[in-house]
Amino acid sequence: MKELKRENGLVVLRFDRGEDFMGSLTSWLNENDVRSAAILCGIGMLSDMEIGRYDGREYARRTEPESCEILSLQGSVSMKEGSPFVHLHVSYADHDFNAVGGHLFKGTVSMTIELVVAPMSPGLVRKPMGGVFWQMDS
Amino acid sequence: MKELKRENGLVVLRFDRGEDFMGSLTSWLNENDVRSAAILCGIGMLSDMEIGRYDGREYARRTEPESCEILSLQGSVSMKEGSPFVHLHVSYADHDFNAVGGHLFKGTVSMTIELVVAPMSPGLVRKPMGGVFWQMDS
Amino acid sequence: MKELKRENGLVVLRFDRGEDFMGSLTSWLNENDVRSAAILCGIGMLSDMEIGRYDGREYARRTEPESCEILSLQGSVSMKEGSPFVHLHVSYADHDFNAVGGHLFKGTVSMTIELVVAPMSPGLVRKPMGGVFWQMDS
Repeated sequence: MKELKRENGLVVLRFDRGEDFMGSLTSWLNENDVRSAAILCGIGMLSDMEIGRYDGREYARRTEPESCEILSLQGSVSMKEGSPFVHLHVSYADHDFNAVGGHLFKGTVSMTIELVVAPMSPGLVRKPMGGVFWQMDS
Repeated sequence: MKELKRENGLVVLRFDRGEDFMGSLTSWLNENDVRSAAILCGIGMLSDMEIGRYDGREYARRTEPESCEILSLQGSVSMKEGSPFVHLHVSYADHDFNAVGGHLFKGTVSMTIELVVAPMSPGLVRKPMGGVFWQMDS
Repeated sequence: MKELKRENGLVVLRFDRGEDFMGSLTSWLNENDVRSAAILCGIGMLSDMEIGRYDGREYARRTEPESCEILSLQGSVSMKEGSPFVHLHVSYADHDFNAVGGHLFKGTVSMTIELVVAPMSPGLVRKPMGGVFWQMDS
């Protein structure tokens, strides 16, 4: 992973083949002491994704072993129990170009990921609301 | 709804369960006198959505009663006939994780929505172009 | 195509009916000497799209003649062999509101496109990595 640019409140990150995407992003947040951020856009390809759909109690999960074009990545970074937490939703294209998506739990970078993050001063936090639901607050 | 952060030209908003999403957003725009903006990203869950697909004359509409993961929200705010108008397109995941989307007419916040808005000085306006089509201009 | 607003590091562009979307965007980049940028969001409608899915060697391609609602546009601008190169992924809704998407090769503006670009100082470049894969670097 490489930080390519930092300008006007935006950081452009490039993730490389084979990387654990969520792990690398979280490492970058920790190393740069980013405790709050908006994740504005991200494209590239991921394989071995695990995505979820919240049913009000828990997440139904789906795995996608294949390398897929990432159509969009949007989300936030906030502090949850003392660590930066990435809340990210993904949309990707399957073999027939049909879009699939949900809450992104994990994925492996299969070609590259270009991500645009807007780091902010600390202040965004996650508070438990019952069950697995933690709400973003300040 | 709560404004969680305002920094570097971006505002992070959180919408809460049961809220009329478009109504709450429009109220916030009015209260903060935001007449032009880019809506850069939004995730969370909405139910009772109404979305549209413009066929060149009018919108074909589809309703989605279920609570669905919102994969992306993108759009703009401009002035239309003296009021701030939200032009927003949504992508969401259905029960089988398949993505569905269109022009967002309405939706109810079913868990939370985290939205990132870039407010701008006044200047973006909508001008009638014939039929239901109003083009954004300045 | 018209530049509607430039503020806080963001530019709002409007593309008009009949325009070659990628061509017009590239012309605007050249005329404004934008060599690096993040493309944060874009909605509207495109027809005659050509999209791709990279299989590790080459792109499988799909064409979409119909006018479709654009759900999201995300990507980057970097220099490739001396010219600004637009790397853009699209998600759009088909006739039944189902989302489809991939790497965007081309499209014709069928109603309007509202695009938000964050121009940056020069520095983002594309380097050949073998095959058709050029990686963004700095």
